Amino acid sequence: VSVAQDRLIEKTLLAETGIPVAEFYSIESLQDLHDLAKHETLPFIIKTRRFGYDGKGQALFKETHQAAHIWSALGEVPMIAEKIVRFSRELSLIAVRNLSGEVVFYPLCENRHENGILAQTRSCSEPALQKVAEEYACKILDRYNYVGVLTIEFFDCEGKLLVNEIAPRVHNSGHWTIEASVTSQFENHIRAILNLPLGSTDIYSEFIMYNLVSCMPSMMEMLSIRNTHVHDYNKTQSPRRKLGHVTLCPVTADSKNRLEKLLTE
Amino acid sequence: VSVAQDRLIEKTLLAETGIPVAEFYSIESLQDLHDLAKHETLPFIIKTRRFGYDGKGQALFKETHQAAHIWSALGEVPMIAEKIVRFSRELSLIAVRNLSGEVVFYPLCENRHENGILAQTRSCSEPALQKVAEEYACKILDRYNYVGVLTIEFFDCEGKLLVNEIAPRVHNSGHWTIEASVTSQFENHIRAILNLPLGSTDIYSEFIMYNLVSCMPSMMEMLSIRNTHVHDYNKTQSPRRKLGHVTLCPVTADSKNRLEKLLTE
Repeated sequence: VSVAQDRLIEKTLLAETGIPVAEFYSIESLQDLHDLAKHETLPFIIKTRRFGYDGKGQALFKETHQAAHIWSALGEVPMIAEKIVRFSRELSLIAVRNLSGEVVFYPLCENRHENGILAQTRSCSEPALQKVAEEYACKILDRYNYVGVLTIEFFDCEGKLLVNEIAPRVHNSGHWTIEASVTSQFENHIRAILNLPLGSTDIYSEFIMYNLVSCMPSMMEMLSIRNTHVHDYNKTQSPRRKLGHVTLCPVTADSKNRLEKLLTE
Repeated sequence: VSVAQDRLIEKTLLAETGIPVAEFYSIESLQDLHDLAKHETLPFIIKTRRFGYDGKGQALFKETHQAAHIWSALGEVPMIAEKIVRFSRELSLIAVRNLSGEVVFYPLCENRHENGILAQTRSCSEPALQKVAEEYACKILDRYNYVGVLTIEFFDCEGKLLVNEIAPRVHNSGHWTIEASVTSQFENHIRAILNLPLGSTDIYSEFIMYNLVSCMPSMMEMLSIRNTHVHDYNKTQSPRRKLGHVTLCPVTADSKNRLEKLLTE
């Protein structure tokens, strides 16, 4: 956990383990930002090393003159500068390892973000990428003798996978496993830490999971759409806050259209 | 509920609603049992009118001389005598009706009993019987303006359905809906009583649900079999007590064989 809580340590150890990641630099001072702009080609994404999520603690460093503002806005704390990579999509791999070392993987899924927050996760079938993603995941799991669910976010750069982030836990981009998989990420996490045999990660059907951000649509309307599975976290509405999610499974064109219309109203 | 709690009232009202049931008689005294043996052809099954479940409060009346023993063994309370019908199997229909009158049905499933206790429920596809069962269910739901999940147990008598029992609640023979259906019987019951739109009753896959009766097999061994979904009710072991259930979904020949071997050990 301490590794994944510090973006710089995480990226350094991934690179050492032979996992491809985007080019990155440690930023310890305003001078480091100036040096970065001098020696490298902007833009870079600047992130605080700790306590960032949902796009918080991040800034885009496009022009040299932004250095002082970014240093101050992110709190003058240790940061990491990551080279912006061109990617066609973000993929997640949910991996599970139990105490005995048994390992299972869910099928890769595709994430879509809006304003830095995960908006959708949908099924995709990518046998070639799946194989590569699982190889990288095995290296990470073995390296840390990891037990439980681990989520790895990849950038798909024209068929080449770069690891963006690892999350040592059940993950928002795996919530679809509750309905779409034979065994959910939550059940497999419990099985893993109790050293029970891991459950099948096969999926029953294609799916799309939609996060409910900022405001909750009408429960009545969501449930009137066939094959919706609504999860209301019962939180107070607030801008950019994840209040719940809806998984559509199985996916039908009619349900997808109606639900996406409702969610953009 | 009061109707379904009294077997005689239940059977009388079903018959009045035009639903086929096995021939039945009210038994109010030992003399009634003697008269039954005199005027009808035994065997009959004798059941207390109230508080019977899992084969309790029942006796098989095969020979005239058993009358006094049965009258005493069942507690000298009001009873119902039901003609034994020859049936090839028992089927359950889980029906749901919400406050607005919207109605959905799960696919018919087949029940297997051992020693009077439900042992297995498995998927079956019977479009012709499904149609008839749903017609009977509609009559019952409408007659009582019923809201929530209602379970109807049928005898399949060479393709003719007789209603054996109605249970005004979520039912053991519907526990497979948790994993095998798009919407579980529990979620649909809550939707029904909150007057929300009912969820799809489509199934993802074939299934078999096994009750765990009298003793719990090893959790480790059950979970090592692919596609098992284990539910442990965390009850004290006791003969003839339902301690949990396992749903196999999807069903594979290998998992079925291994699980059935484990459960008969």
